[in-house]
Amino acid sequence: MTDVPPATTRPADDAAYRGALTDVLGVLAHGSLMASLRMAADADLAPTLGLKTAMAQLAFAEFKAFSDLTNHMRGEGIDPQQAMAPFVVPFAAFHERTRPSDWLEALVKAYVGEGVAKDFYRELAGFVDERTMVAMTAALDESDEAEFIVPVVRAALVTDPRTVGRLSLWGRRLMGEALSQAQAVAVERDALANLLVGGEADLTQVGDMFARLRERHQERMNRLGLSS
Amino acid sequence: MTDVPPATTRPADDAAYRGALTDVLGVLAHGSLMASLRMAADADLAPTLGLKTAMAQLAFAEFKAFSDLTNHMRGEGIDPQQAMAPFVVPFAAFHERTRPSDWLEALVKAYVGEGVAKDFYRELAGFVDERTMVAMTAALDESDEAEFIVPVVRAALVTDPRTVGRLSLWGRRLMGEALSQAQAVAVERDALANLLVGGEADLTQVGDMFARLRERHQERMNRLGLSS
Repeated sequence: MTDVPPATTRPADDAAYRGALTDVLGVLAHGSLMASLRMAADADLAPTLGLKTAMAQLAFAEFKAFSDLTNHMRGEGIDPQQAMAPFVVPFAAFHERTRPSDWLEALVKAYVGEGVAKDFYRELAGFVDERTMVAMTAALDESDEAEFIVPVVRAALVTDPRTVGRLSLWGRRLMGEALSQAQAVAVERDALANLLVGGEADLTQVGDMFARLRERHQERMNRLGLSS
Repeated sequence: MTDVPPATTRPADDAAYRGALTDVLGVLAHGSLMASLRMAADADLAPTLGLKTAMAQLAFAEFKAFSDLTNHMRGEGIDPQQAMAPFVVPFAAFHERTRPSDWLEALVKAYVGEGVAKDFYRELAGFVDERTMVAMTAALDESDEAEFIVPVVRAALVTDPRTVGRLSLWGRRLMGEALSQAQAVAVERDALANLLVGGEADLTQVGDMFARLRERHQERMNRLGLSS
């Protein structure tokens, strides 16, 4: 663990920044918790013990990120439960609307859904102080736990090429629901939205960010053998 | 980690013992994996974020035990997937028949179901070599992650005394289903049954063991404010 200097550009006593920071960590923590629990539940759909274990490992890595983040928050005097509360409804809505109907949908959701969420959180990490950024980056650590998904989905597409269309649509739906919930959050959470728009970024930069998110989403879909 | 001397009374080259050992570790590992995934899925039923987090913590403590156990197995040259395979059906049957219909049932299942399972595994640990026993004991480490359940259930019983009867019945059903699956496993897995019956234990001792399991089950039910 390297020693991180305290924030300089954005002092912790700036109330607006403090509110935004609480939102950033709250959305990330709650997103990780919910993703972890949904992936664990979706492991039920796995056809083999090996795949069930791999999905459980992915869920557990996500829970570890949640756990580390909430520890960081407590250290910063931020109550995790309070910080997560505003995001309970949008995440519940997202997961309710994207309940996988089979194992392949669960795999694509884990790969694509988590991918876009993590890309978004990485973008947010560009707007926070250095100490927070380090904690966020650790939670978002690019691990290869999800990589087991790529060959499994690709093999399924070879076995049954008709699934390409169905899963491509599914990937688009996941992205659409994610963006729709992100927008609902932005409308509700002024501090969070101002961090992006009012801070160093302006509306053009926000547009650029969404373009980057879509681009990386396309790359992930292509890696799975799907079109976006 | 203390240095454990290699097994003396039960040499690792004894094929029958090796078979039994594989079964003991397989049943424990698969039990932990399934319990972890079911508890994570049941966290969906939690009425508050604090309770959801507590249940998730319990689930992932269980996954940690699974993960440590499978590492131990690999170190001993035992393939975890193969060792777990014979227990997939009985555990799936148990969890299918004991799907909680609400949050209180999920809590009682987590507390009582895990309790009796861990008691049983602790009994099994009395029949294995010392190195295995140490690994099993670590996985069964009496943690207090489940203790949050006691006040929550007790508070619910005060609020609605009619739930006492319903949850007491539920606890009995959990115990009944667990024993029924344990019996099915004993019939199928000769090596495992012989470890208990043919080894240092005889049938009387097995009877004593089940009496102890029932007794501790009663204690746990009482702690929750339920009758067994």
